[in-house]
Formats: sequence, C-alpha cells, structure tokens
Amino acid sequence: MRLITLTTDFGTSDWFVGAMKGVVLGISPSTAIIDITHGVPAGDIRAGAFALMAACRYFPKGAVHVAVVDPGVGSPRRAIAVQTADYFFVGPDNGVLSWALAREKIKSIRQLENQKYFLDPVSRTFHGRDIFAPVAAHLSRELPVERLGRELADFVRLPWPRPTQHGGDVIGEVVCIDHFGNAITNIESASAKGSVQIVLPSSRTLRGKSKAICPLAECYSAVPAGHAVAVAGSSGFLEIAVNGASASRRFGLKAGDRIIVKPARCRHGRRQTGH
Amino acid sequence: MRLITLTTDFGTSDWFVGAMKGVVLGISPSTAIIDITHGVPAGDIRAGAFALMAACRYFPKGAVHVAVVDPGVGSPRRAIAVQTADYFFVGPDNGVLSWALAREKIKSIRQLENQKYFLDPVSRTFHGRDIFAPVAAHLSRELPVERLGRELADFVRLPWPRPTQHGGDVIGEVVCIDHFGNAITNIESASAKGSVQIVLPSSRTLRGKSKAICPLAECYSAVPAGHAVAVAGSSGFLEIAVNGASASRRFGLKAGDRIIVKPARCRHGRRQTGH
Amino acid sequence: MRLITLTTDFGTSDWFVGAMKGVVLGISPSTAIIDITHGVPAGDIRAGAFALMAACRYFPKGAVHVAVVDPGVGSPRRAIAVQTADYFFVGPDNGVLSWALAREKIKSIRQLENQKYFLDPVSRTFHGRDIFAPVAAHLSRELPVERLGRELADFVRLPWPRPTQHGGDVIGEVVCIDHFGNAITNIESASAKGSVQIVLPSSRTLRGKSKAICPLAECYSAVPAGHAVAVAGSSGFLEIAVNGASASRRFGLKAGDRIIVKPARCRHGRRQTGH
Repeated sequence: MRLITLTTDFGTSDWFVGAMKGVVLGISPSTAIIDITHGVPAGDIRAGAFALMAACRYFPKGAVHVAVVDPGVGSPRRAIAVQTADYFFVGPDNGVLSWALAREKIKSIRQLENQKYFLDPVSRTFHGRDIFAPVAAHLSRELPVERLGRELADFVRLPWPRPTQHGGDVIGEVVCIDHFGNAITNIESASAKGSVQIVLPSSRTLRGKSKAICPLAECYSAVPAGHAVAVAGSSGFLEIAVNGASASRRFGLKAGDRIIVKPARCRHGRRQTGH
Repeated sequence: MRLITLTTDFGTSDWFVGAMKGVVLGISPSTAIIDITHGVPAGDIRAGAFALMAACRYFPKGAVHVAVVDPGVGSPRRAIAVQTADYFFVGPDNGVLSWALAREKIKSIRQLENQKYFLDPVSRTFHGRDIFAPVAAHLSRELPVERLGRELADFVRLPWPRPTQHGGDVIGEVVCIDHFGNAITNIESASAKGSVQIVLPSSRTLRGKSKAICPLAECYSAVPAGHAVAVAGSSGFLEIAVNGASASRRFGLKAGDRIIVKPARCRHGRRQTGH
Repeated sequence: MRLITLTTDFGTSDWFVGAMKGVVLGISPSTAIIDITHGVPAGDIRAGAFALMAACRYFPKGAVHVAVVDPGVGSPRRAIAVQTADYFFVGPDNGVLSWALAREKIKSIRQLENQKYFLDPVSRTFHGRDIFAPVAAHLSRELPVERLGRELADFVRLPWPRPTQHGGDVIGEVVCIDHFGNAITNIESASAKGSVQIVLPSSRTLRGKSKAICPLAECYSAVPAGHAVAVAGSSGFLEIAVNGASASRRFGLKAGDRIIVKPARCRHGRRQTGH
C-alpha cells in the first residue's frame, strides 16, 4: 500500500481534513496518511508549492503526494495526477505541484476525468474530499495512473523567482516566512559566501537605516541572542534568522522582500567565507 | 480493528490529544486514529456537533466516533456510547453527538458506567483520556456495546435551528464560520433558488445599508475576486463566501446571524435560478 | 515495531513535521507515529519538558519518545538517546527530556554520534529531520541503543520548581498555561487541602486587590459559570481555572506567577477540606 501525504490550506479547525481521510480509508483501509501541513495561508499557491517541494523528497518512493490549495475549485481549472520516477502527485493544475515536479523525472501527466474514481456526487466546493482524496486512495492501491484520464502534454508551472547577479552581488528575495519567523530566501545556500544585506521594506527603517547587514554563519546560535544571522537553511536555501527571536518581526520581512548576498572582501590575500 | 475518529476542543498546543492516543494504543495497538478536528472553540458544543455531523459519514462503516466538548466534565452529566446501523459514537451526553445521531439509525444507547473499561484512576477533569479513549479502544477491539453499561431510552438532543418560511422567503441563520471565513448556514442548498440576502449584525452597515445581497452561484470563483457569493457548500448547506477573502470579516458575520433566501423573480414567464 | 511519539516547537504551519515523518517511514515503513504536540512555544524547553512528562507514561511500553525543542541546534550541544525500563527518549541534551526522565528508571544514556544512523548530509539547522527522526526510526526497528554512541554518565537536568512550605502555607507557582487558559501549578494536587490564593502579577489588581482567593473543588463546573476554582488537574498538579472562561486571561497569569495553598481553617472541631 503506497502512503499518502496531504498538503492543504484547509487549516485544522474544521472537519475538512478529517473528511478527506475518511474518504481515503473507506477506499483503502490500511493506507498510511501523513500530513505535511494544512497551514498553508488560504489560497496561497506559492506557499503550498514551496512546502510540498521542501518535504516531498523525504518520503519513501512510491508515496502519493496530494496538494490542495485550490481557490479555483469548481471552475474549469483542470485536476491532474502526475507520475514521476519516484512518486505520484495529485492536485489542481494551478501550479501548486509544479515546484516539486521541477525536481522530478516526469513519466506521465493525466487529467482527472474518470468519474469512476471520484465520490458520487462531486460537490462544487470541496474537490479535496470528492476528487483528490479518492483518486489518491486508488493510486495507493496501485491503480495504474492511465485509468484516471487522458494524457496531458504539460501542467501549469509557477515561475520560480531566480536570483540575479549584479557585480559580485547575488540579488534574491524572501520566498516564505516559517513558524519561527525565519525568512527563507530563493538563494541556494551552497553558493552563498560573504555577508548578507537585508533591504528593509519601504517605509521601514531600523536605527535610521533602510538596510541591515548580517553575517553568514553555521547555526542560529553562532551569534549572540537577539542578533541576526544568515544560515544555510534545511531546505537548501539561505535563511535570515534572529537567534531566539523572529527575523520576520524584527525586520518586517515578508515574501517578496529583497535580500542581497555581498561577496566577502579579500583580506590578507585570502577570501573570507562565512562557512 | 475498527478505526477511531476524534473531535474535540482540546486544541493541539498541549499534550491532551497525545495522551488520549497513547491510551487507545495501549489497549489496542493497531487501531488507526484519525483526527476530525481538535479546533472546536473551547466549550462550544454546537460547533463540535456540527463538525462531527459533517464528517462522520465519510468514514468507513464500523468506525468509532469520539467527540469530547465537555464543559461539564466531572459533574453528574452522563457519558454515553451509541451504536447505530453504521457506526459507534462515544462522548459526554450533552448534545455534542446529537446532530450526527439525528441522521443515523439508532440501535443501542448505553451509559458508560462499567469501570473495567476506564483508566484507573479516573480524573475529574480529563474524561477524554480516562473514559472516552479507553472505551473507544475497547469498542475498536469489538467489545459488545452492552458491556459498557445500562441501556438508556434517549440522549440529550441539541435543537437544530430549522429555517422558517415567510411568503416566498426562506429565513435561516449562520451555523458556523469555517477556516476560510465562509459562513455556513442551516439552509439546505438543494432547496435554495434565487438570491440571498445577508442581514448584517445590528450596529453594522455596509455602504450605509443594513443588508447585503449576493447571487447564488456554483462555485466561489463564479464571481469576480472580492465579490460575495452564495454557494452549495460541501456539507449540503448554503454557504456565504467572498471570492478570495473572508465573508465573515467582510460582513461581520457570526453564528446566529440571519440569512434570507429570496425567490428568483419571474422573467419572460420562466423562473430564473442560480443553478 | 515500537511506536514513536513527537513533541516539538515546530508548529504545524510549515513542512517540518511532515519531513520528519517521511524520514521515519523511509527507514521503518510500518511504524506508527503519534504527535504529542508541535505547539510548544518556540524555544521554550520547560514547556516541552512538561508536555513530554505529562503525556509519555500514557503510551504503551517500548514507545520511542522524541522531543525536539532545540534553540541550540547546530551548536556543540549534545544529542542523546536514553533507554529506561519502559521507554526510549531521544532529543537534544538541553533538559527537554529531563522532567520525563526524572520519573523513569534509567538503563542507558547514549550520545548520538554514529552517523550511520543519521541522514546524509546532516544540516546545521534541522536535526529533528536529520538526526532525531532517523535515530528514532532505527530504535523503532529495535536497534540496540548501544549502537548509537558512547555511554554518558548523565544528561542535562532542568531544575524542577519545588513548592516551599511557610507556616501552614504551600507556596508554589504556575508552570504552564493550557489551551483553555487553565494555569497548571507545581503543587501536587493530592496534598492540597484548603483554599487557594492567587498572587496577581505585580502592577495588576482585581477589584482593587493584589490577591484573589478561590475554593478547591472537584471539577470546573462545581462553581458558577465565570467563577474561579482550583481543581486537581489531570497531570497530578493543582490547576487554577475559571468555569467556562480563561483563568490566564482573568488573572493575567503566566508561568512563574505565585500560587499559595492556605490550610482550611478548623470549624466546629473538624477540618474543612475541598475534597
């Protein structure tokens, strides 16, 4: 039995996630269902895409990853299942699957249209329960993906905000803020050397300045409590943190704000690095 | 092994839900335990009753549904288990089970009094862990419900707020607000035709008016972003939404506020419907 | 297969907990993973220690309890696994395991240093995923704890705030506030008789007074709605509550605030007790 993961913006204060799990277990009683998160901000397709991308590859091969951030539910937007070399991905075709899929070897893209694998009736407002959960349950039971519907040539891809180079600087941005208030950027941490400049949101200053500088270090506690630090985050991206506090709150950071990696200055003929 | 679902107001910031699950697994190690929600507002028996009613029938037959919203814990309020044609329901006898039970064929109502199936000792403040979890675990292992205690003639029933008719209007109310800020009403969506009038809470106006009108449509995105719409919600009830935003915040709606479905006016000799 | 429990401050809005579970299931596909809580306040080692202590003994023997509240992740703080007569405990050696361990019979304390049982590579910011989850998964599969690393003589112990006696008074403090706003104290409820005095936080008064008195009673609803009451909480400690409301909000209580149990005064030659 393949395990199923769930990534949604449904929250956990209602019965929505429970109903999805009930549907899965009605079709496939011994499937394990693992929550990646249900705390994606309502309708935030990019945040859902990032969470799925960050977590999916830690699951065993064969897992069925379901992501439902679906503001267009009930409209003509397509629903898809994608088989890759390692996994299955199921969700609305609005980009929520696309950042995870960009790292996978695609084998088949299918439109979900065979109603035999849906609940009956299908509501217009809750395809998580009525389409995505039952389709995932059937995939968990090893239904061949071809049965779900016609082959598609491609899926909707969210553009990934690539960092740019300017002189020696790498100019990136905040992609999301995590539970600790750390600001996760789009800059791959393997390539980051030097120090990091945080461009404060306009209309915001910190001690009279519109920019803040923090060192690159190996862990949050490498700087004194309350100090800012940039670290190689656990998803492979550079991350701005404040030791023991929230970088988001300290600097007023949110998704889209600019972050610049400044090359280390040469001293004594050797390059100084943060690592 | 029958699966167990949990619906509580315990939140997830403490160890309460974990302790309940530990107790279940100590008695029945391979039982699957599914959270419906632990986000019922503290002590809100109606919200718990609605969540259980909305989710329970999506689970496979034989499931043991536990609901603990229990402000009277430790007082003489009774604790019950109810066997229906399809499920078992376990919880305090304060109405939290009653909306779900109203849709089921009742087979047996038992008072929980056989202490052999409780933890020992039983605290006065946490029957979720000490009574309801162990009883559910024993039911999961197919303990006959008769063993739990004496047969009861009935259980406490929360009154369901039935909509009323006035002329052609259907006058209903908001039953709960979901995570997205959608206002779920007590009006069955199958019967709703026409347009929907939202009676704003007293002391609140919107552009100088005390009422707002929105169309009935098939999905949230049938109206432009930021516009209000009434849709057939996934639990079978009419639901007031704002495309891409919170209807609750927009209109200041909360449980109990009045919603009126106005019949479609006849035009060209045919009835106009929202569907 | 031994079950695994998780207690963290990771929240559930990101993919962190999902990634940990994926790692466990990649190593040990049929292990059951139970969340105790992920809602420990960020970096609050004491709150994590209390949650683990309160919940762990309700799980079946052999369970592997993982607790990750780890502000020093990536620094030279040690990581440990402790085998006791009944359980395994895995986490950073910063005290988060220590209150639970104080109630257990210790059999072996091991430093986590055998990288064979870690993910490869190990990040500097997410040992929950890269060290603690894979180690727990191997323990779940019955790996002998000796394989994980060298034996240690002891682990870091958080001091437990013991109540003091003054005349007949027992002077204790609030240890944590639960989801309902109940203030859980360090005073063992078995020993508490009489009435309870709440010393309000400085700069706060209630109807002109800096102290409040509430009776000891058997359950929350033993006092009228809106009244304060002290009850024997479900973790064995005295707990200050307000029937139907939040004691924390009413009295401005937080961890560390002082609570005094006053002995019952003798009347008619008999001792009056709350129980």
